[in-house]
Amino acid sequence: MILTVTPNPALDLTWHVTRLVPGATHRVAEGAARAGGKGLNVARVLHSQRHDVMALTTAGGAAGDQFRTELEESGVPHRLIGTASPTRRSAAIVDEATGETAILNEAGGPLTPAEATALTATAEALAGSAGAVAISGSLRPGFGPHELAALVERVALFAPVVVDTSGPGLLAAARAGAHVLKPNREELEAATGLADPRAGARALRDLGAGCVLLSLGEEGLALFPREGDPIAARLPHPLRGNATGAGDAAVAAVAAALAAGDDLWSAASTAHAARAALARRATAWSAAAVLMPLAGELSPRHEVLEADVLLTTNTEVTA
Amino acid sequence: MILTVTPNPALDLTWHVTRLVPGATHRVAEGAARAGGKGLNVARVLHSQRHDVMALTTAGGAAGDQFRTELEESGVPHRLIGTASPTRRSAAIVDEATGETAILNEAGGPLTPAEATALTATAEALAGSAGAVAISGSLRPGFGPHELAALVERVALFAPVVVDTSGPGLLAAARAGAHVLKPNREELEAATGLADPRAGARALRDLGAGCVLLSLGEEGLALFPREGDPIAARLPHPLRGNATGAGDAAVAAVAAALAAGDDLWSAASTAHAARAALARRATAWSAAAVLMPLAGELSPRHEVLEADVLLTTNTEVTA
Repeated sequence: MILTVTPNPALDLTWHVTRLVPGATHRVAEGAARAGGKGLNVARVLHSQRHDVMALTTAGGAAGDQFRTELEESGVPHRLIGTASPTRRSAAIVDEATGETAILNEAGGPLTPAEATALTATAEALAGSAGAVAISGSLRPGFGPHELAALVERVALFAPVVVDTSGPGLLAAARAGAHVLKPNREELEAATGLADPRAGARALRDLGAGCVLLSLGEEGLALFPREGDPIAARLPHPLRGNATGAGDAAVAAVAAALAAGDDLWSAASTAHAARAALARRATAWSAAAVLMPLAGELSPRHEVLEADVLLTTNTEVTA
Repeated sequence: MILTVTPNPALDLTWHVTRLVPGATHRVAEGAARAGGKGLNVARVLHSQRHDVMALTTAGGAAGDQFRTELEESGVPHRLIGTASPTRRSAAIVDEATGETAILNEAGGPLTPAEATALTATAEALAGSAGAVAISGSLRPGFGPHELAALVERVALFAPVVVDTSGPGLLAAARAGAHVLKPNREELEAATGLADPRAGARALRDLGAGCVLLSLGEEGLALFPREGDPIAARLPHPLRGNATGAGDAAVAAVAAALAAGDDLWSAASTAHAARAALARRATAWSAAAVLMPLAGELSPRHEVLEADVLLTTNTEVTA
């Protein structure tokens, strides 16, 4: 089983408008309401690919009730920690004329100390039967970098851990010895203060991370292991679509590789081969996510895309 | 007691953004979720002015649960008919840089025949102890012009009725003998096909309406009774603010006048005086609603504003 942990989930609301006009009133079809947050997207992708998964997160208030209902309907196995503060909302307004999506993200209310303890203790208990753990998304008051680091340390006793977060949490996860980190370029630079991705990845590895998977949007991704050569991966032609959830699909590929027992950080030739296979799969899954209207879904084209991925080893990633 | 009936309510969600940029991701504070719909705004205004009120509407699905919770917290007495289809959502995005608000309105799902019957029967039962009935807002599949007309006819046996709707529903309410109709200029022209407001109001009166209150936004309003002279009312200087709910405040003033026993349609001099007092109050309440951030609220300045209202009798309304 792969465990996903989402400390700060959101009820994702999506509406489509013919053309978004600031100040205007728009008649729209019924919007979609979905249990969202990066870790939920990871769990949905893994569930769709027939991996055994358990999504651990929180729910509170009226939005949390709706979150719970939608998650039950989705069929994704889950465990919810009840919270006094309401589940935050995220609103996406898709402009069908331009293809652009305006997103409003609420910050998320606090966890009480008891709620934070319950989240970590439940994660630890579930990690005992997990092959890998993915911790994804933003933190929140009461569950900040300190609590994230403690969570990483405790679940890492049972299973390898991939963390996708930003800011001080990214540094805390590296220090706690996360096996894989998945920042994008902006997150890596913001957290480390280093504009060069190689230098930024090295900084995270020096803090304690096993491997850094740097997502680069249309330009693919780069893997920087603690030992061994970096690998860059991309498709020959970038795909246009819905970029939301592309990084989560890459994290899902990482978690699946970790659960399969892959060594993604050492200098062994088998580790290099595992990294190459992961770079290929993570690139294809990200692209397959871009082709789908909703985050957490993969286009069936991911297998074809995987064969198209171009790999480069030990070159400067300048794109 | 004043009964408000809202066939197609909405869960109103409101977010504030520093500046709405299509295609961008915005971090926002927790949004407000509110039981909305024109009839709910009417009920809130009356409740705030210490009128005894009962808000009758529908609720379904997860959004309906949240609608119910918020309405209970509001303190407005209410009766909800449960529906299989979910309560629609309305999303408002306030751009704090421009002051403009982009609104997304879902259309609303259908009422089953049993649900429509329950809504009408409950309204009829409550009308027995009502001094006035206000029926407000859009219609929906399963509760269209035919059902609205039947509702008007049945509650009018017990209490005078004001109807605020648009399209074929406006004509149906006139034919059913609604005591007062409150279209705005666009709604009046769209429903009657007549660009001249006097001609449009005459058409509605000819169909059976007792009095037409035409709301004119910053230009105030005009009252066209079945008998007697029209009255136009406006403030000396228009007020800027949140126009959402201004018309509902005018309907609240109408309902309060009807509940007080005012004759708003005959040629009697007392009726003309009642219409003049209503024109003054409805103009002031609309303006006081514009001054408030949320629909359904009145600024305490409404009493001062009422003294400032300018009345004109029997002139062309050309503004």
